Amino acid sequence: MFEAAELGRKISKKVFEQQLPKLRSRLLEAQFRLKSTPLPVIVLISGVDAAGKGEVVHRLTEWLDPRGVQTHTFRDVSDEERERPDYWRFWRALPARGRIGILFGSWYSGPIVQRVYGEIKNSKLDRTLDRIAFFEEMLVKDGAILIKLWLHLSRKEQRKRLKALERDPETRWRVLPTDWKHFKLYDRFAEIDERVIRHTDAGSAAWHLIEATDHRYRDLTAGRIILEALEQGLKQWREAAAQNRHHAPATRPPKRGVTILSRVDLNQALSPRDYKRQLQKCQAKLNQLTWAACAKHRSSVVVFEGWDAAGKGSAIRRVTAAIDPRLYHIVPIAAPTDEERAHHYLWRFWRHLPRAGRVAIFDRSWYGRVLVERVEGFAAEPEWGRAYLEITDFEEQLVEHGIILTKFWLHVSKEEQLRRFKERQDIPYKRYKITEEDWRNRSKWDAYSAAVNEMVARTSTEFGPWTLVAGNDKKFARIQILKTLCRRLESEIS
Amino acid sequence: MFEAAELGRKISKKVFEQQLPKLRSRLLEAQFRLKSTPLPVIVLISGVDAAGKGEVVHRLTEWLDPRGVQTHTFRDVSDEERERPDYWRFWRALPARGRIGILFGSWYSGPIVQRVYGEIKNSKLDRTLDRIAFFEEMLVKDGAILIKLWLHLSRKEQRKRLKALERDPETRWRVLPTDWKHFKLYDRFAEIDERVIRHTDAGSAAWHLIEATDHRYRDLTAGRIILEALEQGLKQWREAAAQNRHHAPATRPPKRGVTILSRVDLNQALSPRDYKRQLQKCQAKLNQLTWAACAKHRSSVVVFEGWDAAGKGSAIRRVTAAIDPRLYHIVPIAAPTDEERAHHYLWRFWRHLPRAGRVAIFDRSWYGRVLVERVEGFAAEPEWGRAYLEITDFEEQLVEHGIILTKFWLHVSKEEQLRRFKERQDIPYKRYKITEEDWRNRSKWDAYSAAVNEMVARTSTEFGPWTLVAGNDKKFARIQILKTLCRRLESEIS
Repeated sequence: MFEAAELGRKISKKVFEQQLPKLRSRLLEAQFRLKSTPLPVIVLISGVDAAGKGEVVHRLTEWLDPRGVQTHTFRDVSDEERERPDYWRFWRALPARGRIGILFGSWYSGPIVQRVYGEIKNSKLDRTLDRIAFFEEMLVKDGAILIKLWLHLSRKEQRKRLKALERDPETRWRVLPTDWKHFKLYDRFAEIDERVIRHTDAGSAAWHLIEATDHRYRDLTAGRIILEALEQGLKQWREAAAQNRHHAPATRPPKRGVTILSRVDLNQALSPRDYKRQLQKCQAKLNQLTWAACAKHRSSVVVFEGWDAAGKGSAIRRVTAAIDPRLYHIVPIAAPTDEERAHHYLWRFWRHLPRAGRVAIFDRSWYGRVLVERVEGFAAEPEWGRAYLEITDFEEQLVEHGIILTKFWLHVSKEEQLRRFKERQDIPYKRYKITEEDWRNRSKWDAYSAAVNEMVARTSTEFGPWTLVAGNDKKFARIQILKTLCRRLESEIS
Repeated sequence: MFEAAELGRKISKKVFEQQLPKLRSRLLEAQFRLKSTPLPVIVLISGVDAAGKGEVVHRLTEWLDPRGVQTHTFRDVSDEERERPDYWRFWRALPARGRIGILFGSWYSGPIVQRVYGEIKNSKLDRTLDRIAFFEEMLVKDGAILIKLWLHLSRKEQRKRLKALERDPETRWRVLPTDWKHFKLYDRFAEIDERVIRHTDAGSAAWHLIEATDHRYRDLTAGRIILEALEQGLKQWREAAAQNRHHAPATRPPKRGVTILSRVDLNQALSPRDYKRQLQKCQAKLNQLTWAACAKHRSSVVVFEGWDAAGKGSAIRRVTAAIDPRLYHIVPIAAPTDEERAHHYLWRFWRHLPRAGRVAIFDRSWYGRVLVERVEGFAAEPEWGRAYLEITDFEEQLVEHGIILTKFWLHVSKEEQLRRFKERQDIPYKRYKITEEDWRNRSKWDAYSAAVNEMVARTSTEFGPWTLVAGNDKKFARIQILKTLCRRLESEIS
């Protein structure tokens, strides 16, 4: 595969200087137009050591307006990063819409080096690559222009380059001991690199192999590839925008008959006496369990979804009352901020993942994508349609990292909701809780029901099962939630 | 001082339950109204061990809508925090406008414990407290409602409480070995606590001492103090808003005669040959110096300010061309995002401070407050007027942390600017750089001149001096910048 990048391609200084002004001017123009689009640009710079990755980035920031460009390296993992799933550091580094992010090494370096050093097997490598492919596809579907550059040097050339760097006192420091170590492993690297490239060379996220022997050819080629990708991305976006797709809300008729929700027994209730007794017991237990989890550096993510007025707020208060305030934080999910809107919809949830040992309570969550955004037409059908898989992949990453994930759907009957709406209007300190929007949502009960049923069916996984809470009796619901949380924690940390 | 909080105040269960509903309802109402204001609420919970700080927070989150409340503890310092100035972690935790942040321990714990253990002397403690007072005053002037609660227990009561916690198997884990250690140091703590409270008990940031022996009295009192502060803050804000102050741009006539800017010799220039030779030399040196600084974990902050078309962008490129892209990032400062707008104006700069060993290049900076915001009237005179001190305090914190700070003002003559504006309109790939706004700014040259002169005069400190760059000759300017940077780095790390 790499033979295609060992052809000795060169560009003379004269040709380089002839072609550069036009390339620069077109790059700047494309970058300028990019600013007002919702397209983030992600440039991955990978390749063999000493191929000049840093130099290529120098060139790019020289040619582009550096104010719209952000570069990121992934070397030392900070402890804040180590305490979150692997991809947290990559999500942190993703550029906002209209901006260009240049990532050194990125999500590819780790798996390659691990495989070369024999820390993982091919089967594990392939699984890692599947995740990468899924991740990249997700970004591209969200509008990202993804440009993956692989700088190649032949074995001979790599040796020559390292020697040359070492000879020059001004560049000597750039040759690290690992560079020679990796050079000795050249063939091994080539083998793994090829496997990685083949595995992740999808149409929407194709690799560009660049022969890096001649620096002018290398830089100009990198610039051209980026230019082409930018111009093509902009063109496709303009065309799509011209069609002016309006997202009609999904109007598929809700399924009749038995549904998941309809099987929740809403008649379950608790007497005040039983409630009080069990509440104290559960809260004391939860308190101890959260401290124990903290001692073991196991963090928790708890998701609360449910009908308006189903009692999410008061249930959350019963949970937080049991946990030391130093150990939890609540993440209320309302309309996204503009920084959040400038990223993939999952970005805002990644940024709130808890540190080791802490509990993050999401009051509404990423499921908004397949609930309110679906029903109200804020997301188009392909968008919310692919979200199920994106969400379960996200949750799988949490669980693989050791996060204890618990998801609650607080269910109430339509009649009970009405009763509570009316009650809220009558009690002064509850009045702030009821808005016009609640009534509007209520009028779409059937559409929401269909969405909830599909959500539970498609995102109840072994690692992230839904707990449907019988919410007509608030006391019963709270105990069910506390007991579920205790069970989850207990089984995970004992 | 603490005698006032050892009077044995109590509230019976009956009275408590009588008064609670009204308090809750008013708290919720105040919180609801808060949402649509630009006022962040900062509640500090301090006090002696075992006084029930956690329990008070439980109560508060129970009484308030927890979705608008964020709690933060400051215990373990993460490495990302350690790599920044001390206050970085506090800035991270500040609540946005319209929201309530409850901070445990906050900026007070560290200095108190250090003083009790004899790690610092009173003189250092007092300096730390001065900084705290300045910081709090700054937040309050920015609109924050700052509520500082100190929970007090007598020596006897603290002992009783610790014993009681230890007796109960369900609370035993809450008593830490340090609690008993601190108990033995009770008198020492009391002495330091008093010093701290006295020193930071400013009118706008007063302490509220709460007797914490009786938990009902303690909780109800905390709730009432918060309610009162919220209602008063809301009232003051409404009154101020009703006056509908319009910020007239400052129209003080610019001073005549010799100014700081007028003393910059704009005739300095370099021949192309000298430029080329020196450029290579400086860049090679800067490259080595940034690596050396990285090895010593010393980070840099470089500020670029200057007239439109003064050559900031191209100067930055000559700097970044010398630095490994893995070591620097550029922070372009344009209009703030809504998350940034929801905080104090310095917040957005704190969040971009570099990790240890890295270089952050600010393309425009916090000086916008006393330049564009002043001249255009985006900030009122009291706001930009107090910013000089806020800024030098900020910069002092950077430098105290070991950050190498360099600040450039790129100066050009009014004629040279005009020449460049015209040139930009003629060269295709430069055209994107010139906008209507540039011409508008140019028409305010005199007002900007006055602002720049005052800025340089008032913020050129020993730890953060300004370098005025003679920018009429771009070559000269770039070399001046590179040389200055090299000198700064060299003197700091050698």
